[in-house]
Amino acid sequence: MRDTLDQPLWQAWSVGAHYARVRERTRLLAEPLSDADATPQSMPDASPAKWHLAHTSWFFEAMVLVPHLPGYRPFNPDFGRLFNSYYETMGERHPRPQRGLLTRPSLEEVLAYRAHVDRAMAELCAQGGGEAAATIIELGCHHEEQHQELLLTDILNLFAANPLRPAYRPDAAPDTPSSDPGAMHFQAFVGGNVDVGHDPADGCFGFDCEGPRHRVWLEDYKLGDRLVTNGEWLSFIEQDGYRDPLLWLSQGWAMVQERGWQAPLYWEQGPDGWQTMTLGGMRRLDPHAPVTHVSLFEADAFARWAGKRLPTEFEWEHAAAAMPLVGNFADSGPLAPRALQGPAAPVRQMFGDVWEWTGSAFAPYPRFRPEPGAAGEYNGKFMSGQFVLRGGSCVTPPGHIRPTYRNFFPPDTRWQFSGVRLAEDF
Amino acid sequence: MRDTLDQPLWQAWSVGAHYARVRERTRLLAEPLSDADATPQSMPDASPAKWHLAHTSWFFEAMVLVPHLPGYRPFNPDFGRLFNSYYETMGERHPRPQRGLLTRPSLEEVLAYRAHVDRAMAELCAQGGGEAAATIIELGCHHEEQHQELLLTDILNLFAANPLRPAYRPDAAPDTPSSDPGAMHFQAFVGGNVDVGHDPADGCFGFDCEGPRHRVWLEDYKLGDRLVTNGEWLSFIEQDGYRDPLLWLSQGWAMVQERGWQAPLYWEQGPDGWQTMTLGGMRRLDPHAPVTHVSLFEADAFARWAGKRLPTEFEWEHAAAAMPLVGNFADSGPLAPRALQGPAAPVRQMFGDVWEWTGSAFAPYPRFRPEPGAAGEYNGKFMSGQFVLRGGSCVTPPGHIRPTYRNFFPPDTRWQFSGVRLAEDF
Amino acid sequence: MRDTLDQPLWQAWSVGAHYARVRERTRLLAEPLSDADATPQSMPDASPAKWHLAHTSWFFEAMVLVPHLPGYRPFNPDFGRLFNSYYETMGERHPRPQRGLLTRPSLEEVLAYRAHVDRAMAELCAQGGGEAAATIIELGCHHEEQHQELLLTDILNLFAANPLRPAYRPDAAPDTPSSDPGAMHFQAFVGGNVDVGHDPADGCFGFDCEGPRHRVWLEDYKLGDRLVTNGEWLSFIEQDGYRDPLLWLSQGWAMVQERGWQAPLYWEQGPDGWQTMTLGGMRRLDPHAPVTHVSLFEADAFARWAGKRLPTEFEWEHAAAAMPLVGNFADSGPLAPRALQGPAAPVRQMFGDVWEWTGSAFAPYPRFRPEPGAAGEYNGKFMSGQFVLRGGSCVTPPGHIRPTYRNFFPPDTRWQFSGVRLAEDF
Amino acid sequence: MRDTLDQPLWQAWSVGAHYARVRERTRLLAEPLSDADATPQSMPDASPAKWHLAHTSWFFEAMVLVPHLPGYRPFNPDFGRLFNSYYETMGERHPRPQRGLLTRPSLEEVLAYRAHVDRAMAELCAQGGGEAAATIIELGCHHEEQHQELLLTDILNLFAANPLRPAYRPDAAPDTPSSDPGAMHFQAFVGGNVDVGHDPADGCFGFDCEGPRHRVWLEDYKLGDRLVTNGEWLSFIEQDGYRDPLLWLSQGWAMVQERGWQAPLYWEQGPDGWQTMTLGGMRRLDPHAPVTHVSLFEADAFARWAGKRLPTEFEWEHAAAAMPLVGNFADSGPLAPRALQGPAAPVRQMFGDVWEWTGSAFAPYPRFRPEPGAAGEYNGKFMSGQFVLRGGSCVTPPGHIRPTYRNFFPPDTRWQFSGVRLAEDF
Repeated sequence: MRDTLDQPLWQAWSVGAHYARVRERTRLLAEPLSDADATPQSMPDASPAKWHLAHTSWFFEAMVLVPHLPGYRPFNPDFGRLFNSYYETMGERHPRPQRGLLTRPSLEEVLAYRAHVDRAMAELCAQGGGEAAATIIELGCHHEEQHQELLLTDILNLFAANPLRPAYRPDAAPDTPSSDPGAMHFQAFVGGNVDVGHDPADGCFGFDCEGPRHRVWLEDYKLGDRLVTNGEWLSFIEQDGYRDPLLWLSQGWAMVQERGWQAPLYWEQGPDGWQTMTLGGMRRLDPHAPVTHVSLFEADAFARWAGKRLPTEFEWEHAAAAMPLVGNFADSGPLAPRALQGPAAPVRQMFGDVWEWTGSAFAPYPRFRPEPGAAGEYNGKFMSGQFVLRGGSCVTPPGHIRPTYRNFFPPDTRWQFSGVRLAEDF
Repeated sequence: MRDTLDQPLWQAWSVGAHYARVRERTRLLAEPLSDADATPQSMPDASPAKWHLAHTSWFFEAMVLVPHLPGYRPFNPDFGRLFNSYYETMGERHPRPQRGLLTRPSLEEVLAYRAHVDRAMAELCAQGGGEAAATIIELGCHHEEQHQELLLTDILNLFAANPLRPAYRPDAAPDTPSSDPGAMHFQAFVGGNVDVGHDPADGCFGFDCEGPRHRVWLEDYKLGDRLVTNGEWLSFIEQDGYRDPLLWLSQGWAMVQERGWQAPLYWEQGPDGWQTMTLGGMRRLDPHAPVTHVSLFEADAFARWAGKRLPTEFEWEHAAAAMPLVGNFADSGPLAPRALQGPAAPVRQMFGDVWEWTGSAFAPYPRFRPEPGAAGEYNGKFMSGQFVLRGGSCVTPPGHIRPTYRNFFPPDTRWQFSGVRLAEDF
Repeated sequence: MRDTLDQPLWQAWSVGAHYARVRERTRLLAEPLSDADATPQSMPDASPAKWHLAHTSWFFEAMVLVPHLPGYRPFNPDFGRLFNSYYETMGERHPRPQRGLLTRPSLEEVLAYRAHVDRAMAELCAQGGGEAAATIIELGCHHEEQHQELLLTDILNLFAANPLRPAYRPDAAPDTPSSDPGAMHFQAFVGGNVDVGHDPADGCFGFDCEGPRHRVWLEDYKLGDRLVTNGEWLSFIEQDGYRDPLLWLSQGWAMVQERGWQAPLYWEQGPDGWQTMTLGGMRRLDPHAPVTHVSLFEADAFARWAGKRLPTEFEWEHAAAAMPLVGNFADSGPLAPRALQGPAAPVRQMFGDVWEWTGSAFAPYPRFRPEPGAAGEYNGKFMSGQFVLRGGSCVTPPGHIRPTYRNFFPPDTRWQFSGVRLAEDF
Repeated sequence: MRDTLDQPLWQAWSVGAHYARVRERTRLLAEPLSDADATPQSMPDASPAKWHLAHTSWFFEAMVLVPHLPGYRPFNPDFGRLFNSYYETMGERHPRPQRGLLTRPSLEEVLAYRAHVDRAMAELCAQGGGEAAATIIELGCHHEEQHQELLLTDILNLFAANPLRPAYRPDAAPDTPSSDPGAMHFQAFVGGNVDVGHDPADGCFGFDCEGPRHRVWLEDYKLGDRLVTNGEWLSFIEQDGYRDPLLWLSQGWAMVQERGWQAPLYWEQGPDGWQTMTLGGMRRLDPHAPVTHVSLFEADAFARWAGKRLPTEFEWEHAAAAMPLVGNFADSGPLAPRALQGPAAPVRQMFGDVWEWTGSAFAPYPRFRPEPGAAGEYNGKFMSGQFVLRGGSCVTPPGHIRPTYRNFFPPDTRWQFSGVRLAEDF
């Protein structure tokens, strides 16, 4: 694949350069995985690595190459059915919970599929594909970056179900000394009429659900100056946070009882104290690192226990808009949340480390209209039963995040790198 | 019971008069029911009539009489366990799905329990109970009015499960001629910074979740000038509204398939056309009456099909705040939604007939803080996974509703009298 | 009803006398029940008392009166759908798990239905109904006796789910002193070629599945000379019988874990020791009385723990065939198993007290052929996944049982009065 | 591995020769599988191929090498937990439904584990292991042969869930011409007192549940002279066999409705007629070949529809005892049932092709006693809720079957190669 992707023709079209970079990154993420690793599905919410690799290629094949590259021949006509995710407009789909039974195509064949699509995309880019193609390619690149993050969260979930506790990358989440970040302080923000959401006039990409940019009224508010740590979470556990129903939303308390939640996902108490499963295998719990793998229900209960609350997504965005977009993302980082370090600042860890649960239900912005056609199925149809998370995580691809970026998951979700920032009123 | 409630001592205390009126109304609602009718639970979400009757009395016993009336002796010490609903602070509870197995106490004994509580409450009122008691009695009265509505929705659900289709009140939902309300028009409202929510300074009651009063920013918007009708819903059915996944939220489409939804709850297609189960038994469907017994998912899909959207709860409240608080409520009405009648007005049917689904998730208002103690469990803990409905219905007690009133149910709820008002952007 | 049933015309036809006696007994069994008591269904396996009362009447209406009494008018044409149990040949049925939602017809109306059927049956009997009618009436009487037993087991299950623990008959299961039955001995029986099963030539009734009479080969065997007691079961509990997987069938061990079985159904450990729910309400556990409300899985595990086994149904029948048909049945007895009393005998408690689980799966006898038509649906279609129980119980109607009688239930059944007799090999 | 297994030391001990042959056969069965193919679990009843390969090795490691080979070092101490199947005595087990998530160890590592065990077994055999070891090795070989068959049935189930419908062995189940076997005839057998079951005095192996040999009484009976064919099953389908509740056991009819059964498992109706998934991929249905992949419920319904019944396991065994032990087994055959061929005989296809459902529940024979220790967990604990199948199938290893052999599965099982032979009474 490399020879193709290195060709200067990608450069002829800025979207081509982006495409080549994203696709290469996906390939590198798959390198530590065997054919077997890439096959099973650890739970219905997760997908096999092979599926992520193929589905993102199918996206370009179905949305770009078939309509825009004359004479394009699909790699395998059956793949549409296998690797369509949820696009009802795009024909019959393989049932989601059975994705893990597709031992064929093999990982090797899926990589060949990727190369086939990449070659055709290079051809298209060389020709120049027009505005419509460029728009959908751009969407496809951001879509693929989302699946890059999911590939990692899903592999962690799969490996955590194996009593051998294999490591995705043995050097991930290293057991390095960290220091106590000290007490949390709350930084004040002035409210008023504030504009939020993505503005396409800025010229940078945003998913449909990030706009339209619109006005909201915010009261003055305060945000915690850092993320909640594992050590703070241990206090919550020790002070019976998981046993006091008054701390919990009613649905959350039902989950606690039904699923026996007593700590974040992947935490295990052993003879030598708490450990947690990471992309580097089992690791001693770092009390100074940000807590992760907690649900909205847990985040909300923790906030109530602490006498605080979760921020709304607009409080978060308003505060984040003025901050430098730096943090512990994938590639440069340990693929795990990291204890506070680096220069002092009024508010830290806003980007990277862990997705921050907000108290906002995922809902359409005023005047939101889905795109016509399959692209319109992107986000709008998930606007019930989900909460917004902001800021990206330690497995988010660098460059993928923005202050306006809205991630969303059901409130019982724990396998994502999701954590907590507190807020309070004046 | 009557002799007690008619005594002038109730009058000594304004809250006493309210209490007496509400309690008597509950008793009258139970009159058409046999001991058997009052016993089973048609589904986990519903409760037996007997349970509503006893639980509302338990509320006064546990929250008012035990703390505030010296020497009060509970009617039966076991009833606390049986008739506590969800107050985790108030001790062990009978499992909700087994409420329908309590053949004892009998309806007669439950009515005796009510009378026992009423006598003690009369005593307390005669003494004057102080501010704290008054506050909780007021809450108890509004709480009981909520259960009055639920008693009716739950009985309808129970009777609909009986192939004999019994009537709660044979004169309800009469088969009267109605006329076509004509095309729906959209009325414009001016947005801007708007204050919403309940203000206790107004001196009238509001549930905790209705406040604090706070500012929001609204864009200009339009609301449909009447409710969506059964006839319009038939067009949605006939034009494959229940078969087109692109109209539906993802969770909603899953419900359509899993539960086989093809029409609103209680609709049945017979040889002579559509019929629907009502509190008066099976009735021919009136195409001019407002549609009811639809879920948020159906309401949302209908709006998308119609090229419109659901209003937000604040758009609704802003529009409703200036309107007269009249409509088709219980007592005076047919216990069923009614075709448009009465004087022309820019926007009609805002109150009564059916609860109007909004597109707003049920969430805390800024600075919302639950009350300490059991009263604090009232609404806050349901603030995940639910949508707000506004305006009251044909089974809402008269006087119970307000422009700031927030009802809330999960988005798949159909057994409430829930319907649709459309909105659109400029 | 009494006036009808006392009329001498019943006497004109022996089947009429049986009918009158059985029907009157059912009516008496229902007397302690309120309309509410008779309505709910405590679990899908159980039925409401009202349903038992109506279904047994429907049997005579549909199987006898409609075909055999010219001009008979059904009491209510809807009742067929409501009260058909499982006869696929007899039209659409009300879903079994929703039987408990039928608050109408009321108990009073169901009793009127019974009277209506009784009057018509009296008329038919007065006319004399012919051989075919007599056969089906006889079946109907035995069928109704089965439902008499189920009515009691189902009421016990319902009342046990009520924290108030009401009594069906306060004088049932009295707390009388009992004495230790002493060690269990094993009585030898000689095997060989043995004939088992019901022989219609004897002139007495048998259900279809009791025949044809046929030959089996039995090895010599021994049976315990009495039933296993509560005291012996306590030893099983104390010696970790419910915690040792090696004692259990694989499906049984799954049940133990899934349902948390730690003792027989209805046992509760309180501050004053073990208690158990009975038809007389909560009672102190009598260590000398036979254990009851155990599943086949528990019976089998107990036998393995004791170094014994369960008898086969043919070992049981061969031994029972020569014994007097006496025991603790309903009517004369306490409606609860009773500690050993009465004259010494080689083997005791074979009939009455508790149904005895056998190790035999319920299967057709050689040459078994179901009757044509609806009567043929009687037993044959349950011949998978069930085990045979023998001997009748303390709630079996007197005269209902025979040595050839085969009761059958799935192996996890606990709400029947089922207990244990041990067997061993030579 | 081959060099080890070819060493003459295996020959020193007859059990060693058997061991070497069986182990080599398993290795060959795994050859067509990739690491991915060997990993997922298509349903909780099935196991991954890798699991079969490892579990059978664990059996020898835990039951033979650890106790009998001094100084043996387990390959990996974690493997016991991963690859124990159901031996409660042998420590904690990996949850059965999560077997498909074990992407590590890889297939390569599992094969290395097998080689490690084989080398140690060779060493043990060279030393000579004593009587106890020989007995358990013999059991282990037969156990491994059972897993050889399961490996094939489970792979077929996995591949059938893949829309690409891959072939395990492209030359399996070839599409060869076959001829109509003609009408089925029924062959008479004389009953009486008959001895059945395995007699260890014969010197050949039998599983515990095959004995003790004992006497039964059989009536005279007849057996169909061949297996039921696909063509006959098509008639059953076309004549509404799957739609007539009167043909079905009650549990079976529930399955038909719940799971939507309309044909045997793996049958699909396409534009060109019926096809079926095989180990060679999708194939045109051969109307002359024996039907397979039917449940006991379907077999029983078919028999009732045909006016016949299923044989009991003892009728089958009595008839089979005198027949030559030849048939369409694995290795020499097509890995699929085959239309009747070969020399005429009174009764044919008794062995091989498909397992024949009997009407007999799987139950212990008189005087059956499980072995002490883990080997005692072999079969006895499954003696509830299962039916006996006889005769072996087209994927049964040659030499594995005997007239006394009892296979058993729950009555809704369809993924085994299970078919139908009819019986009738005189």
